[in-house]
Amino acid sequence: MKSISSTITTKKPTKKITHLLTEEQKILQATFDLRETPQKYDTDYASINVPFDESIIKKVKKIIIEKQKLSIDSLVVIGIGGSNLGTLAIHQALNGLLYNDQNKIPSIYFADTTDPHYLTQLITILENKLKNHKNILLNIVTKSGSTVETLTNFHILIELLKKYQLDYKKYIVVTTDQNSSLDQWAQHEDITCLHVPALVGGRYSVFSEVGLFPLGFIGIDIEHLHTGARDAVEAALKKENDVIKGALAIYHAYQDGLIIHDLFIFALELEGLGKWYRQLSGESLGKPLKDNPQTRCILTPTLSIGSVDLHSVTQLYLGGLPPTFTTFIGIQQWNKTIKIQKDKTLTSLNNTIQGKTVNEIMDAIFYGTIAAYKKQKKQFTIFMLPQINEYSLGYLMQTFMIQMMYLGKLCNVNPFNQPQVELYKKETKRILTHA
Amino acid sequence: MKSISSTITTKKPTKKITHLLTEEQKILQATFDLRETPQKYDTDYASINVPFDESIIKKVKKIIIEKQKLSIDSLVVIGIGGSNLGTLAIHQALNGLLYNDQNKIPSIYFADTTDPHYLTQLITILENKLKNHKNILLNIVTKSGSTVETLTNFHILIELLKKYQLDYKKYIVVTTDQNSSLDQWAQHEDITCLHVPALVGGRYSVFSEVGLFPLGFIGIDIEHLHTGARDAVEAALKKENDVIKGALAIYHAYQDGLIIHDLFIFALELEGLGKWYRQLSGESLGKPLKDNPQTRCILTPTLSIGSVDLHSVTQLYLGGLPPTFTTFIGIQQWNKTIKIQKDKTLTSLNNTIQGKTVNEIMDAIFYGTIAAYKKQKKQFTIFMLPQINEYSLGYLMQTFMIQMMYLGKLCNVNPFNQPQVELYKKETKRILTHA
Repeated sequence: MKSISSTITTKKPTKKITHLLTEEQKILQATFDLRETPQKYDTDYASINVPFDESIIKKVKKIIIEKQKLSIDSLVVIGIGGSNLGTLAIHQALNGLLYNDQNKIPSIYFADTTDPHYLTQLITILENKLKNHKNILLNIVTKSGSTVETLTNFHILIELLKKYQLDYKKYIVVTTDQNSSLDQWAQHEDITCLHVPALVGGRYSVFSEVGLFPLGFIGIDIEHLHTGARDAVEAALKKENDVIKGALAIYHAYQDGLIIHDLFIFALELEGLGKWYRQLSGESLGKPLKDNPQTRCILTPTLSIGSVDLHSVTQLYLGGLPPTFTTFIGIQQWNKTIKIQKDKTLTSLNNTIQGKTVNEIMDAIFYGTIAAYKKQKKQFTIFMLPQINEYSLGYLMQTFMIQMMYLGKLCNVNPFNQPQVELYKKETKRILTHA
Repeated sequence: MKSISSTITTKKPTKKITHLLTEEQKILQATFDLRETPQKYDTDYASINVPFDESIIKKVKKIIIEKQKLSIDSLVVIGIGGSNLGTLAIHQALNGLLYNDQNKIPSIYFADTTDPHYLTQLITILENKLKNHKNILLNIVTKSGSTVETLTNFHILIELLKKYQLDYKKYIVVTTDQNSSLDQWAQHEDITCLHVPALVGGRYSVFSEVGLFPLGFIGIDIEHLHTGARDAVEAALKKENDVIKGALAIYHAYQDGLIIHDLFIFALELEGLGKWYRQLSGESLGKPLKDNPQTRCILTPTLSIGSVDLHSVTQLYLGGLPPTFTTFIGIQQWNKTIKIQKDKTLTSLNNTIQGKTVNEIMDAIFYGTIAAYKKQKKQFTIFMLPQINEYSLGYLMQTFMIQMMYLGKLCNVNPFNQPQVELYKKETKRILTHA
């Protein structure tokens, strides 16, 4: 990716830190060097091999072709967190926020939490389609096979499907770990099943079967996603690269007390990407330290969207000056250009915008914001995305995933587990069992 | 509102703090006691009189009836920040996230920032409607009349309108300050114009012409919004009330070093409400102190949505334990109930959910999360919304607005201005002028 990455934090890493990163890079390289066909997935770092695994694309494409024969009108992705955030991020980035409003086929819907209002609306829409003899495809995604929200939504939607399709089993694709109870059920019912490599965790799984099946099904070029991700892996393993520099910038800022890391993205349709990143960071870093569980890593990811949030939280960032390090993401070249025509009847309103393009306005706001951050001496980094396309997104998301592994090492936490998530699950289960 | 507000922070306010709040309450009472018809809007606190101003509803309703005669297919709200966040919040809360997907009439679209990709999609959709002889109505909302994003979008969309409607001026409603350049333009062009009371700032304006016109136009009961808001004003002015208790809880936590305030809402369709609150807090509190500009108020609002973010940032909140105070919002009674049928073929998946309602699952997750927060000794408050309806939303949003005034007093900042937002505007203007 031709990326401008201008790191303002210029601290030189100490010997100790350089050593930590060399160590981590060696582990990554070892994992990477093992790649062959079929890929090996025997370490926590295994996700870096996913984009090199041609068997995934092959498997996924085969099922896509098979299910396309059913002339599907709508795809419903049932999954939560790591099981749907990456898919949602890439879909919104490439197809925009008004994709369904344009009556594109297949339309796509997401069912993540168990909100009765949202679910009621979704059921109404889907039932209406089924009544009109349109076909829907359910893709249920859960690594463990036991996520309560996902199973709840699946129960509700499978029941709807059964009402209208005698051969309903053809209209389901399950994505889960091999031998999970869901996998066993799918085998027993003769339902199509995709398996996620066991050691590829939810938040690192977007380029596996988890993301590629639904994305490929709605026509996104999944090969280009992989190409971008592959190039990012190779770049991240070079000595002194932008991924390491980015991780160091965040880490140094955190050591200096900037405990909030704000991803400030200047593109509406990348809000989903921001939410994906927030999960990646929150679950990877926010936990007790490996060798000192009394101490915690509290680096807190937040998300702002430009220019909307200039009218929302920028007063706080520039006036309150909270302990925030910012990573700006800008778009170098938009896929669309819209010109503001000159119009005499409107000149009294604002004469600086007439004759310009909307793209120029957006750029001016972006660079105006950065100038204001500089004047207030805020610490930040800039990522310029050359264009919003499959290659760039593959590159950027893979970069962030590897950066998180480096940050895990720097912060002295295990970036692959999420032990405290079990706390609420345990309490929820207790309530459900006694209800 | 029958609200359970269980404040865990139990610190007793000191004499000094009690005095501060008494002082602020007196100002609010004085503003409130002045209410008469027409309402007086001569202080910064004036927004508390808005829900008592029957002339607003009257004016707005007259224009709604007039414009409904044009058989409008789609309403486009053009505005950013305080000009659209409240409208978006209430629309999403009541109509749900899949309103447009259900082909309801009028459909509603929002144009806030100047994102070329989003705008291109919006233009395609609207042009398609216009070509098919469907009518659209533009509601441009900007208090100052000069917001660059809003004027850019207005230029682009008015041009589209002109292409298809000879009498395009009928299809525009302007909402702005009296005598702004936009107001003067509207008068000159003979375009319908609604005026916002000058001292009612953007983030406090949702129950004025700003929010009521678009909300009333799409069929939301704006009288009930006002009733709820009125009851909240009256409750907030009583001695020792929940609004003051809530403000004190947040303030005490902030004094104890909990600089992040997370609004954790357990309802998908209230994400917009959370974004509205984030703006309300960010712009009201994040700034230099009144009598000591070297010191800043850094209280940082964040937003989490349950149960989605249990799979995202809850690991951080429960494992990293960042300095976060949480306000939970739960729904006491959902407007919809969905039952999970018992199904033998699915029993191998999860037998604790069969036969339950989706509502019970959502409740179990909500209370399970609170139990986990308690076990990790996190500080939090709970707001239970009796139901998602106009009255509750009016009550809750007005409560939050008054709470922000009390917080401004406690934190020693002016909760009504946003001086540092000018910093980026100045830089953007410089770039646009020299481009």
